[in-house]
Amino acid sequence: VILIVTPNPAIDVTYRVAEQRIGETERVLDVARYPGGKGLNVGRVLVAAGIASRAVLPLGGSSGQWIADALDALGLGHSDVRVTGETRTTVTVVDDRAHPTMLAEPGPAVTAAEWSAVSSTVDRALDRGDVDALVIAGSLPRGADPAVVAHWVASSRAHHVPCVVDCSGPALLAAADAGATVCKPNRSELLAATGADDERQGALRLLDRGAAAVVVSRGPDGIAAHTVDGVVEVPAIAGVSGNPTGAGDAATAGLLAALIRRPGWAAGPAGALDVDAAALRSAAAYGAAAVLSPVAGDIDLAAVERFLAHPDVPQHHDHRTGSTA
Amino acid sequence: VILIVTPNPAIDVTYRVAEQRIGETERVLDVARYPGGKGLNVGRVLVAAGIASRAVLPLGGSSGQWIADALDALGLGHSDVRVTGETRTTVTVVDDRAHPTMLAEPGPAVTAAEWSAVSSTVDRALDRGDVDALVIAGSLPRGADPAVVAHWVASSRAHHVPCVVDCSGPALLAAADAGATVCKPNRSELLAATGADDERQGALRLLDRGAAAVVVSRGPDGIAAHTVDGVVEVPAIAGVSGNPTGAGDAATAGLLAALIRRPGWAAGPAGALDVDAAALRSAAAYGAAAVLSPVAGDIDLAAVERFLAHPDVPQHHDHRTGSTA
Repeated sequence: VILIVTPNPAIDVTYRVAEQRIGETERVLDVARYPGGKGLNVGRVLVAAGIASRAVLPLGGSSGQWIADALDALGLGHSDVRVTGETRTTVTVVDDRAHPTMLAEPGPAVTAAEWSAVSSTVDRALDRGDVDALVIAGSLPRGADPAVVAHWVASSRAHHVPCVVDCSGPALLAAADAGATVCKPNRSELLAATGADDERQGALRLLDRGAAAVVVSRGPDGIAAHTVDGVVEVPAIAGVSGNPTGAGDAATAGLLAALIRRPGWAAGPAGALDVDAAALRSAAAYGAAAVLSPVAGDIDLAAVERFLAHPDVPQHHDHRTGSTA
Repeated sequence: VILIVTPNPAIDVTYRVAEQRIGETERVLDVARYPGGKGLNVGRVLVAAGIASRAVLPLGGSSGQWIADALDALGLGHSDVRVTGETRTTVTVVDDRAHPTMLAEPGPAVTAAEWSAVSSTVDRALDRGDVDALVIAGSLPRGADPAVVAHWVASSRAHHVPCVVDCSGPALLAAADAGATVCKPNRSELLAATGADDERQGALRLLDRGAAAVVVSRGPDGIAAHTVDGVVEVPAIAGVSGNPTGAGDAATAGLLAALIRRPGWAAGPAGALDVDAAALRSAAAYGAAAVLSPVAGDIDLAAVERFLAHPDVPQHHDHRTGSTA
């Protein structure tokens, strides 16, 4: 099973309006609500791909209860840690003309005792011996100590379980310090967290700190895996346009989907991952398939298969109709 | 007790941002969440004024549960009818520069069987014999038959309980047809519902249909009570500026607060109300006090007392600091 920690889950609400206007009363034409936060997006894609996964997450208030119910409905197993603060909501307003507007609540303050309960939940899951990989994905709530991420990474190492971390800022650095198997930021997160001038320099800084590999998603510029030995890179799937929200999360799921299916993985991975071009191609294919979906965390598996079978054929998709020309 | 029906309750969420911008990711600096919908705003003001009140409302999903919990915390009693659809949320985005932007979800579809359950709840409450007035306030969810409003009005009449209705459109007309004691739209709602060219004409149309009185809130232009015999009007409290959201609901509460405290009311009102200048002055004072509050449904009772004691003294308030100059 893939264990996924989402430190700051959210209800992702999308409001469609006729036309975004400031200072007006806007009738919402269509409301979509999904359990979100990067880790839950990864988990939803893994479930869609038929890969056993389990979410660990702090949940609070009626928003937290909504997420728990929604995960049940989606078939994504979850171990909740109840917290006092109300789980955040993120509202995205869309129309057919302008870029989406996102209103992001900061998320609840999670206490040290509540973080301890999250860590205990992670440790207990790892103790069971059936965890194939640990994923830590998404922002930390305001005020959270990045050391919590280091604890989860260290625990996965102690259990000889590979750990993939898609965090930003100090949490990403803490994960590298603790020896994350893969740090997986996007390029701008990498540069912001490390203060580096270019991608290779930023990746080397995380590798110096202790990460075994750094996988960088570059949107339309493809995806790259950095180790101290060098860089492997693959291009993005050509001709795909649509909604990039959640594409990086789908890429993380695609990376894991490729690695976990390799012979010998289930027998006990050594704690290092061979992030080769084939694994990156899977990541790119999942990311591209997510771009075709209007909803983060949704994915068209048939598109993934097409992209993997014909990686060099330019794809022309209209994400609104789902048709392929 | 005052029984308050809120056909389309909402979680009213206010997001404060540094500056409203379309197409950007906005960090929400401050989140406020209140149980809303016009009836619940009226109820919150009545509770603040120490007047026993009870809400009747359809509630669905985790949003409905949130409202039930919030009403408990506020001390407003409530008889909930559980419905299948998720109770709506209304998001208002504010900054210090532009007008607020309101994103209004349409609200759940409520089934005929669920409306029957609401009506049974109203009827049972009226049967207990301790209801001093019935208030029906707020929009109907999409697709709802205005006949439900007529049913509640007719039931209050059958129980000899006065009924105050603040609805719009066909629901307002249905309330008048059923013989509402007071129809209380604002001026633009009155003109829109009746198709009249001016306020008196619109009021006469509701009176012709069967309303005993029509009270029209006019914002800065004061408040008026129309009967077939004529019009009584009082000016708005002078020099008050701030947040007009919920001021009409506070005025409804102020009207009831004045009427219910009159000697003999508790002994059994005759089904007609004497909406005189004193009652309108109370409505205006409550409305003005609500304008001073940044949150609909909140009210400064000390301001109400000041306004009632010195109705002709221009008031100069800064609603942000709460100070009075």
